[in-house]
Amino acid sequence: SRHLTWSFHTPRVINAEKSEFNEDQAASCQISIRRREPGLEEDEEWLILCSTQFLTGYYWALFDGHGGPDAAIIASNYLHYCIKQKLEEVVGGITGAHPPMHLSGRCVCDSDPQFVEEKHIHAEDLVVGALENAFQECDEVIGQEMEATNQMGGCTALAALYFQGKLYVANAGDSRAILVLKEDIVPMSCEFTPETERQRIQQLAFLFPKLLDSEFTRFEFPRRLKGDDVGQKVLYRDYFMEGWGYKTVEKADLKYPLVHGHGKQARLLGTLAVSRGLGDHQLKVIDTNIEVKPFLSCIPKVNVFDFALHDIKEDDVLIMATDGLWDVLCDKEVAHMVRSFLAENRTDPHRFSELAKCLVYRARGKKRGHQWMLDDSHEASYDDVSVFVIPLHKRDED
Amino acid sequence: SRHLTWSFHTPRVINAEKSEFNEDQAASCQISIRRREPGLEEDEEWLILCSTQFLTGYYWALFDGHGGPDAAIIASNYLHYCIKQKLEEVVGGITGAHPPMHLSGRCVCDSDPQFVEEKHIHAEDLVVGALENAFQECDEVIGQEMEATNQMGGCTALAALYFQGKLYVANAGDSRAILVLKEDIVPMSCEFTPETERQRIQQLAFLFPKLLDSEFTRFEFPRRLKGDDVGQKVLYRDYFMEGWGYKTVEKADLKYPLVHGHGKQARLLGTLAVSRGLGDHQLKVIDTNIEVKPFLSCIPKVNVFDFALHDIKEDDVLIMATDGLWDVLCDKEVAHMVRSFLAENRTDPHRFSELAKCLVYRARGKKRGHQWMLDDSHEASYDDVSVFVIPLHKRDED
Repeated sequence: SRHLTWSFHTPRVINAEKSEFNEDQAASCQISIRRREPGLEEDEEWLILCSTQFLTGYYWALFDGHGGPDAAIIASNYLHYCIKQKLEEVVGGITGAHPPMHLSGRCVCDSDPQFVEEKHIHAEDLVVGALENAFQECDEVIGQEMEATNQMGGCTALAALYFQGKLYVANAGDSRAILVLKEDIVPMSCEFTPETERQRIQQLAFLFPKLLDSEFTRFEFPRRLKGDDVGQKVLYRDYFMEGWGYKTVEKADLKYPLVHGHGKQARLLGTLAVSRGLGDHQLKVIDTNIEVKPFLSCIPKVNVFDFALHDIKEDDVLIMATDGLWDVLCDKEVAHMVRSFLAENRTDPHRFSELAKCLVYRARGKKRGHQWMLDDSHEASYDDVSVFVIPLHKRDED
Repeated sequence: SRHLTWSFHTPRVINAEKSEFNEDQAASCQISIRRREPGLEEDEEWLILCSTQFLTGYYWALFDGHGGPDAAIIASNYLHYCIKQKLEEVVGGITGAHPPMHLSGRCVCDSDPQFVEEKHIHAEDLVVGALENAFQECDEVIGQEMEATNQMGGCTALAALYFQGKLYVANAGDSRAILVLKEDIVPMSCEFTPETERQRIQQLAFLFPKLLDSEFTRFEFPRRLKGDDVGQKVLYRDYFMEGWGYKTVEKADLKYPLVHGHGKQARLLGTLAVSRGLGDHQLKVIDTNIEVKPFLSCIPKVNVFDFALHDIKEDDVLIMATDGLWDVLCDKEVAHMVRSFLAENRTDPHRFSELAKCLVYRARGKKRGHQWMLDDSHEASYDDVSVFVIPLHKRDED
């Protein structure tokens, strides 16, 4: 099996001192997963201690906060602990020394042979399940913590875990991770926004109309409707539609749309620009009693990259960044910068952190008068920008 | 614009006389879409008739019935009419002669400029929306019709529409359509089964636990649990998990799972092998009051193929078939048969219908003793098998 050692002054740059307040948070650490001897109960603690072995995971995460930095701070202090816990719960199945019942699904049920199933469950599926459960647990903890201390806010979460020869990227929000390989760019996440999750959000409002408290319409229209549109035919979409249809405007359609706007302007309940993440338990639509949380999901989509299936080259890296980077640079532009920077700086021992800085400064742009501009004289990112550059190549020393 | 004329003794073969009862139905026809002059009201009927122009669509559909043939028969008689109606509702936007308000999304709202949006809505999106709405309307009609006549049953629906230079394939169920092109196989549908839609189905049960009436568990396990599993740790998945975790078995977990089984054996509520389709309004789980319909969706997923972006060759075809074919032949095997059959029978004027027959007979296999066997001595399909072979190449005569 592959041995990687990463230094944990991992190359990352947060925000490049542009704004006074920064709602981005980052975390990275080794995760030691305790592997218990099976069959031992909690009260045999001394035996557990005697027989403990550890597996090592490597973890990096970015949290982009909104409505205050608190949720992002708690998440950056706590998510890796949730992941460690959830991995320990399934580690017996992962290592396979004592695979718990039905990992293979081949267990035959003699009394009821028609129920025997082959589900093709692999160790990888247990790690994915652990990450999904960890995000959910972390969200619960954030909710309790913030209620107890009367704090507000939420955050997106993008977490990468290297474990047992595979890279797992779990994403809930609009940050993005890509692998920049010598010959290829591999997307490791997709963005969850009110626009990309429109159908899920509209369907919830269809199933539970009370959630909108008669203040919003669940229909999508190409623009905000106004009084003289009543009686006209306009384009609309309901929860079950990927295409568009026409409807005759009624008075109820003049309400503010549940999901409104396009691209970076898309908003959920006029309030939030993301549809997945952690926190926001107390968030209400301004001047109403309408809660936003029921429409949010804390569950990440997990993508897996198996190192055994790829020939990793020296300059291959994982790039993780908050939306501030991707708003102004596309995957190809980032990959181009990564490849040319690393090729030009082959001997610099700090080249990965220099590259992270370089990416952040590029997205931040240069100050010209009152505006921050990109090199191509487009407007630069005004958002917080945080970037991880994580080398993938096996290194025996650091 | 492209002109295609299809003969409507379209090459199709149903069931190959294998079973006595056949629950598959097929339909194909031209659809004439009436294009009204805009601004005319219903009561100006004579003016409408004077100014009517028609656009032509070509339609093919397969319906795989279950619990009786009635739903499939109604759908085969009615879905094209729903599609015609829904297309007529949006035809003004499609032809663009008088694009109704906001088709482009560019309409500026002077009073409220921040609400101006660019949604990039194209004519194609209106056809997709029309198909989605047509399936929903057809499902309602089937529900009313079957309640009135006390009929039972449901069906899957796979419909293809050629309209204005594009091929639209709308699928609700486990039939499949692929394009077999000279150099390429293009999937035009994906299957909707209790297994592929597990998360949607489990989530409904999570949101509305009463739908299970305490008779089912929404959790998925690798096999049916039994009494002595209580207290053991077993693998499970909940609605939000793509991965797997462990849970300690409680008594409630011994209930029959909402989604159970793998592959062709997967069942929804122990009752149905598909999760989308038309009908089944009255269907209850045997010996209970639990309704299946709330877990079913009648909404198709629509895939679009733009002829203008491809150089269509003489032997390029659309293959549509019910699951009976795909259970025993994969896309590649079908494509191989299609290409070699058409190359060997270039002059036969009935070669497309001969090919459809050939595919059905291949899936049906040969009778050896009491068993139907494939050429490679695997077991053949015992299901109904229906196949359309639709040539894509432009023909001026037929």
